[in-house]
Amino acid sequence: MSTPATQVVPPLKDELDIVIPTIRNLDFLEMWRPFFQPYHLIIVQDGDPTKVIKVPEGFDYELYNRNDINRILGPKASCISFKDSACRCFGFMMSKKKYIYTIDDDCFVAKDPSGKDINALAQHIHNLLSPSTPLFFNTLYDPFREGADFVRGYPFSMREGVPTAVSHGLWLNIPDYDAPTQLVKPRERNTRYVDAVLTIPKGTLFPMCGMNLGFDRELIGPAMYFGLMGDGQPIGRYDDMWAGWCTKVICDHLGLGVKTGLPYIWHSKASNPFVNLKKEYKGIYWQEDIIPFFQSVSLPKDCTTVQKCYIELSKLVKEKLGPIDPYFQKLSEAMVTWIEAWDEINSPTKLEALSLDGKKDASASNKK
Amino acid sequence: MSTPATQVVPPLKDELDIVIPTIRNLDFLEMWRPFFQPYHLIIVQDGDPTKVIKVPEGFDYELYNRNDINRILGPKASCISFKDSACRCFGFMMSKKKYIYTIDDDCFVAKDPSGKDINALAQHIHNLLSPSTPLFFNTLYDPFREGADFVRGYPFSMREGVPTAVSHGLWLNIPDYDAPTQLVKPRERNTRYVDAVLTIPKGTLFPMCGMNLGFDRELIGPAMYFGLMGDGQPIGRYDDMWAGWCTKVICDHLGLGVKTGLPYIWHSKASNPFVNLKKEYKGIYWQEDIIPFFQSVSLPKDCTTVQKCYIELSKLVKEKLGPIDPYFQKLSEAMVTWIEAWDEINSPTKLEALSLDGKKDASASNKK
Repeated sequence: MSTPATQVVPPLKDELDIVIPTIRNLDFLEMWRPFFQPYHLIIVQDGDPTKVIKVPEGFDYELYNRNDINRILGPKASCISFKDSACRCFGFMMSKKKYIYTIDDDCFVAKDPSGKDINALAQHIHNLLSPSTPLFFNTLYDPFREGADFVRGYPFSMREGVPTAVSHGLWLNIPDYDAPTQLVKPRERNTRYVDAVLTIPKGTLFPMCGMNLGFDRELIGPAMYFGLMGDGQPIGRYDDMWAGWCTKVICDHLGLGVKTGLPYIWHSKASNPFVNLKKEYKGIYWQEDIIPFFQSVSLPKDCTTVQKCYIELSKLVKEKLGPIDPYFQKLSEAMVTWIEAWDEINSPTKLEALSLDGKKDASASNKK
Repeated sequence: MSTPATQVVPPLKDELDIVIPTIRNLDFLEMWRPFFQPYHLIIVQDGDPTKVIKVPEGFDYELYNRNDINRILGPKASCISFKDSACRCFGFMMSKKKYIYTIDDDCFVAKDPSGKDINALAQHIHNLLSPSTPLFFNTLYDPFREGADFVRGYPFSMREGVPTAVSHGLWLNIPDYDAPTQLVKPRERNTRYVDAVLTIPKGTLFPMCGMNLGFDRELIGPAMYFGLMGDGQPIGRYDDMWAGWCTKVICDHLGLGVKTGLPYIWHSKASNPFVNLKKEYKGIYWQEDIIPFFQSVSLPKDCTTVQKCYIELSKLVKEKLGPIDPYFQKLSEAMVTWIEAWDEINSPTKLEALSLDGKKDASASNKK
């Protein structure tokens, strides 16, 4: 027998893509090889499209640079950020899979307290495949984990939970701090391994970080737009935050769950706080209005799909945030463009055309 | 020098009472001696008042049995449950301190993963003395812990937090399960030490367990009524749940915080699931209506004190839950009686009278 009966097929092997935005050679994948190699990678190359990004041998991947994005989306490419990791959402759009895991290229394999390497992807998959409990807080955290359950007083009618749309992982070593906190606490490292996964309750917003993030693309994909950041934009480092606010509001509306906690990755290097401050300062100011806006958003009942919710949200952004700065007018329009592009790329006819196109275009795809 | 300069005064030594409801000798205090001995205990003796409860030497305590409760409250004693640990709230009422810690007599000192004894009381005090963050979720949990902070994207205007009113601790070994879960999972033990404290977001209810609970009596005391349970009542084991629902709704209204997580205690023995099922079954049924009721409660703006909030809540309970069962009519009236008794006991003139009374009545007080 060529295949022993005990061989373990990696979970969701053909149903999950790993999306990586990058500007450099992907040597960091060597450390992830035992966990990532069975999966397909979508690499979104940011910055200079003539630069050649080296991917370690043996990985199955497709790679898109700015020229590819412009060619595939045409004028709609304007909704994809340039010179900012926000460009990763182009990979979400191009995926044909049900699940996405996205990770930054400065994130390495962390160890659990027993010293064992953490398979972050496996934990995300576990989170995504078990229900969430956004309607009532369970004090022993995720009731669907081994050795845990719903505690006394948890209403039985709510124990079925809701489908999990998002799994938000955390970071050991360099915590995900804003520039002011980086400046004030340059030496702070996150060494606390919190052995928990929990559902963020309905009606509660959270700061979603894109560094180590899994989601169900079929359930929530079109809401995972990382906005207009970087080149030509007045703001950076709010791409994942924007996606998180929109995603959470839409998950709450559609009855979907968002989990946070495990898994941890090892975040190797703090970004430059001075550069970050320049990118962030308008966001720091604007978010004081953006958060109350998202906290008060109420989507109409007839918004029954993520797309409908997102278009409705784009109108509210224009109306309520537009007066703050012309940027939000532009962002609102980009939100609409994003949905148009998503629907176009993911339409059955376009999918077929892209598939043919892909066969002609060797530069955009590399099979091991 | 009789007192070395390095002597550590236990935190809040003269500002915190430990309230223990019991029907047996308090041998469990031996294990807690290093942590509890500096504090004053209020022991609420449940059941037969002629029984003598032994308290280990060296503890400073006052003890109230049912005769004391009847004598002190007169007709208002009807609001204090009998033959149920719900009677503990009489101790909350009698305390003259700012903070309360309450613990069950089957709870022992747990060990942290390094094998060190956990000073549960010290952790509760730490939780209560640092702010809560109910308005936005912080993914690295309590930002006020050593080595943690607010993550990128957390609005700066919300970083001051709000005063913490409640610190809800957890349990290793026997988890706090309802009777059906006990029956289904008789061997399940909680072995997962989750090294986190977090704020339960505004608008989210949780199942508050009274086994290992700290709170700020000045901020939220009058809401910590444990309802009508046990002898003569159709329900048991919902005393802490009731207090938790009321407390959370009032904390949300008044801008106060509720934390859960650390500290753990070691819960030694599961209660009888068959007895529990008998106590719980109406609660299990009723809570399907009670939870939506509490989720939809909105208190008027002029409810600016806990007492006003609680009286308003009692009216809503009569109106909205009364139709479910006559029990809720009675409970609603008991809620009013509780507040009347609280205000009477805690009025300046009554406090003075009780103090004189206490000097005459040796049975109710025992100083080391």
